[in-house]
Amino acid sequence: MTAETRRRAVQAARGELPFDLLLTQAQIIDMATGEIRDADVGIVGELIASVHPRGSRSDALETHDLSGLYLSPGLMDTHVHLESSHLLPARYAEIVLAQGTTAVFWDPHELANVLGIDGVRFAIESTRNLPLQVMVAAPSSVPSTPGLEMSGADFNGDEMTTLLGWPDVRGVAEVMDMHGVLNGSPRMIDILQAGLESGKLIEGHARGLSGADLQAYLAAGVTSDHELTSADDALEKLRAGLTLEIRGSHPYLLPEIVNALKTLPHLSSQITVCTDDVPPDMLLEKGGIIALLNLLIEHGLAATDALRFATLNAAIRLQRNDLGLIAAGRRADLVAFNSLDKLAARRVYAAGKLIARNGAMTEPVISPAASLPRDTLRLSALAADDFQLRIEGASHGIARLRHISGARFTRWGEVEVNVHSGRVEVPEGFSLIWVQHRHGRHQAKPQIALLEGWGELRGAIATSYSHDAHNLVVLGRSPEDMALAANALIQSGGGMALAQRGKIISHVAMPIAGMLSELPPSELAQQFRTLRDRSSEIADWEPPYRVFKAIEGTCLACNAGPHLTDLGLTDGTTRQIVDPLISYRETPDATQ
Amino acid sequence: MTAETRRRAVQAARGELPFDLLLTQAQIIDMATGEIRDADVGIVGELIASVHPRGSRSDALETHDLSGLYLSPGLMDTHVHLESSHLLPARYAEIVLAQGTTAVFWDPHELANVLGIDGVRFAIESTRNLPLQVMVAAPSSVPSTPGLEMSGADFNGDEMTTLLGWPDVRGVAEVMDMHGVLNGSPRMIDILQAGLESGKLIEGHARGLSGADLQAYLAAGVTSDHELTSADDALEKLRAGLTLEIRGSHPYLLPEIVNALKTLPHLSSQITVCTDDVPPDMLLEKGGIIALLNLLIEHGLAATDALRFATLNAAIRLQRNDLGLIAAGRRADLVAFNSLDKLAARRVYAAGKLIARNGAMTEPVISPAASLPRDTLRLSALAADDFQLRIEGASHGIARLRHISGARFTRWGEVEVNVHSGRVEVPEGFSLIWVQHRHGRHQAKPQIALLEGWGELRGAIATSYSHDAHNLVVLGRSPEDMALAANALIQSGGGMALAQRGKIISHVAMPIAGMLSELPPSELAQQFRTLRDRSSEIADWEPPYRVFKAIEGTCLACNAGPHLTDLGLTDGTTRQIVDPLISYRETPDATQ
Repeated sequence: MTAETRRRAVQAARGELPFDLLLTQAQIIDMATGEIRDADVGIVGELIASVHPRGSRSDALETHDLSGLYLSPGLMDTHVHLESSHLLPARYAEIVLAQGTTAVFWDPHELANVLGIDGVRFAIESTRNLPLQVMVAAPSSVPSTPGLEMSGADFNGDEMTTLLGWPDVRGVAEVMDMHGVLNGSPRMIDILQAGLESGKLIEGHARGLSGADLQAYLAAGVTSDHELTSADDALEKLRAGLTLEIRGSHPYLLPEIVNALKTLPHLSSQITVCTDDVPPDMLLEKGGIIALLNLLIEHGLAATDALRFATLNAAIRLQRNDLGLIAAGRRADLVAFNSLDKLAARRVYAAGKLIARNGAMTEPVISPAASLPRDTLRLSALAADDFQLRIEGASHGIARLRHISGARFTRWGEVEVNVHSGRVEVPEGFSLIWVQHRHGRHQAKPQIALLEGWGELRGAIATSYSHDAHNLVVLGRSPEDMALAANALIQSGGGMALAQRGKIISHVAMPIAGMLSELPPSELAQQFRTLRDRSSEIADWEPPYRVFKAIEGTCLACNAGPHLTDLGLTDGTTRQIVDPLISYRETPDATQ
Repeated sequence: MTAETRRRAVQAARGELPFDLLLTQAQIIDMATGEIRDADVGIVGELIASVHPRGSRSDALETHDLSGLYLSPGLMDTHVHLESSHLLPARYAEIVLAQGTTAVFWDPHELANVLGIDGVRFAIESTRNLPLQVMVAAPSSVPSTPGLEMSGADFNGDEMTTLLGWPDVRGVAEVMDMHGVLNGSPRMIDILQAGLESGKLIEGHARGLSGADLQAYLAAGVTSDHELTSADDALEKLRAGLTLEIRGSHPYLLPEIVNALKTLPHLSSQITVCTDDVPPDMLLEKGGIIALLNLLIEHGLAATDALRFATLNAAIRLQRNDLGLIAAGRRADLVAFNSLDKLAARRVYAAGKLIARNGAMTEPVISPAASLPRDTLRLSALAADDFQLRIEGASHGIARLRHISGARFTRWGEVEVNVHSGRVEVPEGFSLIWVQHRHGRHQAKPQIALLEGWGELRGAIATSYSHDAHNLVVLGRSPEDMALAANALIQSGGGMALAQRGKIISHVAMPIAGMLSELPPSELAQQFRTLRDRSSEIADWEPPYRVFKAIEGTCLACNAGPHLTDLGLTDGTTRQIVDPLISYRETPDATQ
């Protein structure tokens, strides 16, 4: 923003110069007063120069007639991981811009867990000067569960202080290590102190926190949350003083949350909206923030209130007083709707330019010059034998093993298995989960464990996008298919692959950091949709827990219960690594 | 705030440690939800550690029973000039803290106009670590009207960049030079650009701005206003996107402003309250923010809404997410009231300590170590002859002179006067206004002009506190009394004095920068009250314009109409210095 643009805006507002662009005939949605009123908007450069009575000015280099449209500030997303879209940021921007989202607060948590500080640098460089305002945060959980997993880097207080010293870094991203915060781990104390000293935002992840623990989490300095699990949870957190980031990814919660908010004497400025994680096909087909707002409206929230969550309230949360209002002096990020019953972006303006019409960009977004981090799967080709579950020192006998039971909300299980030549015979109804460190930071052998509750997988599903360490993870039952799927990813630099009966049946390459694709969104979404569809040839999905999405979260060691990581079988409750072997006895070898 | 305090707060919230202080039995006013609910507040160090169900915790080193009281976050004042109290900041703090104000945004405009950058440094040093949170802004109008007056310094872009680079400087203080902003004076362009680049707040002064000029003022980057003149003005500014700072000093406007706000669909988070200027006796007797809130409530605003203006909304405006809510992790600045119909602070807590009960501090506030700027009236003793209005080169004759007519809203007048030995005979019904540069930056002779509409002053009123250049100003009719009053101030290092018939009848010494006293508040208020009372022996006050307060504003060259400054007779509309002499003709000297 140059002083010259400001000067021109002042002159244009006073009628001494024509506007660059004049938007006429719209009804503007006034986020400050809640009014909807006739007004025209004069724009100079990237700035709103004037909001004035309809028809009172006509001198402009260009005029857009917005008859019949409602004009809102551009939508804002207060918490997102762009990585979930598996798209390069410029491609992601095209999708959400066309839907009316003009600013997002990005926690590049996944990139940082692979690339460390370079991942945050890439997040900044790959979003610089995009028409989408991308505010990058410093991930606080690299790794998410220190001691139980190794990702590509370790962020402690020093790394956070470095990152928070960069003007482009806007805050501390979601503080996931609640256990560390509440129990005063030195790492989390240092990380929070770095955040507090920087004066920047500290974003929360208060999953399931309530009562004393919730209060303690706030006392530590955290100021927002998007992990809402019920209306009561939302109200407790709002009352506690957190800014709510209502999330679109759990739509079944929205009716009760809307009802609860409507019972309050005051609709707080402390309520915003976010998408968190949206896969590429969903983002394209259903939409991001816009889909969430439509759900809120459908469930009975006034459109002006829903829009305020996504505009003025978000700007307040993100300390951006250049955004969030249709007001002179603010950035001309605007979205026009033809209905407030069901929002659909008819026109989108970013920095004063028309960039999308009727859901499509007027021209592609140019990717900033940022070198793309490739070759991040530091692994050699694997063989079927690498996918055998073995009992060390055993020959033939019967072992009693601990295993993982269930998906998303996992429990410990125990089972007796036959061992032949040291190899475990996978019992009926069971499958295998396999994890290998892929960041080149240690040379430990692959980890492998029995998995119950996923049925007998018919082939293998492999992914290098696996929260939060993003090691190479393979689920399956056939060592041959598991090796095949794993090797496909090692060869493509990461991604997701399905193998069955000796063939790769689907493969989405994600060569950038093992999690992003360079494909155009529609193509990637198509590949992703195909992979999602064909995955049902391998697994029987059983909602709500055992769903395709569970693949990406199966190694989340920060959650309660057992998980497999590159360091072994972990217990999220006791925070320990657990030996899967309970007992073993040799038996006469029946096969000899 | 140490990491250790945070850690203790987390532990106390979880019940692993007792609280330092536990406030029980209060009803807390929830600024986020608008609810009033039973809850206890646990405090550790300066932090709120926990807000929990009443009676659920009792382990604390100290417990205060707040039965029957409502607990609110401490009140915040979004725009004030502490100098108007004529008190040292620590003394000012004692008064407003006892009334429940725990944070203020200070524009040290008056100090800076005398002391330059040192004035801002003094503002910071004299408020460091006070129990009152004082956020210091960089004055944007030093002087207010360049070219028409000289104050003690000139702030241009460079000075602003320097000041805004200090972490203690929180923004650009009220941008008074609207004319410069709208017309693109290089100085104002540089000052605003420094503010915009700093990312800090830019506070407005949009007196009388409407329509295109208001839009242009916002386009320049200004984001707030406290110069409201009517309900329509308030609504236009709120709709335009300014944060309102509703001011207590113009109480007659409040009923219509309250009514207007109540007609809006949404009560905006963009509404705050401020005091701007309050003299010491008023501050003590009527109160600052608390008096304003009571007026708003009296005029029909819900107490929770009025309090939200002064707490959460103010914290949002001032980008202080450690203030404004009774929430764990925020600073324990709290005020307890026994009624929401008429607010009166029964207990005030600052940084977790009880600091006031029933309107009185529990102990004095310790002044920070800051060297006090004295000897700022760089003038030698004056003689009666220095207060003669002369026509240069004239002997005996009749002159036609331009003069100032009216108070506060001044108009040009013309009058024929008799001249004897070069000296103007002050006509019937007229008085004199006299201004002398007092900052040692130029040696120009005193300026003197005829004043109509103040009647024939019976003696002299002198002040070194005269907006905005704070030169030495004397109003009177008797050159002897004028010299006497002026000399009293030169001797005391500044202040205000009344002289009549060769005697000083009242004198308030303000030796610090010619505007602040070291006296205890009650004593200063008593002196000020006496001076105010006795001033009516000299002047006949005629509200609403010709009132005692007009003395301090009589040289405000930035306002429309004629004013006298150290550079001469000025025209605020044309921004020119005007020769008072229209014509002169010699006449036979009747006295010879």
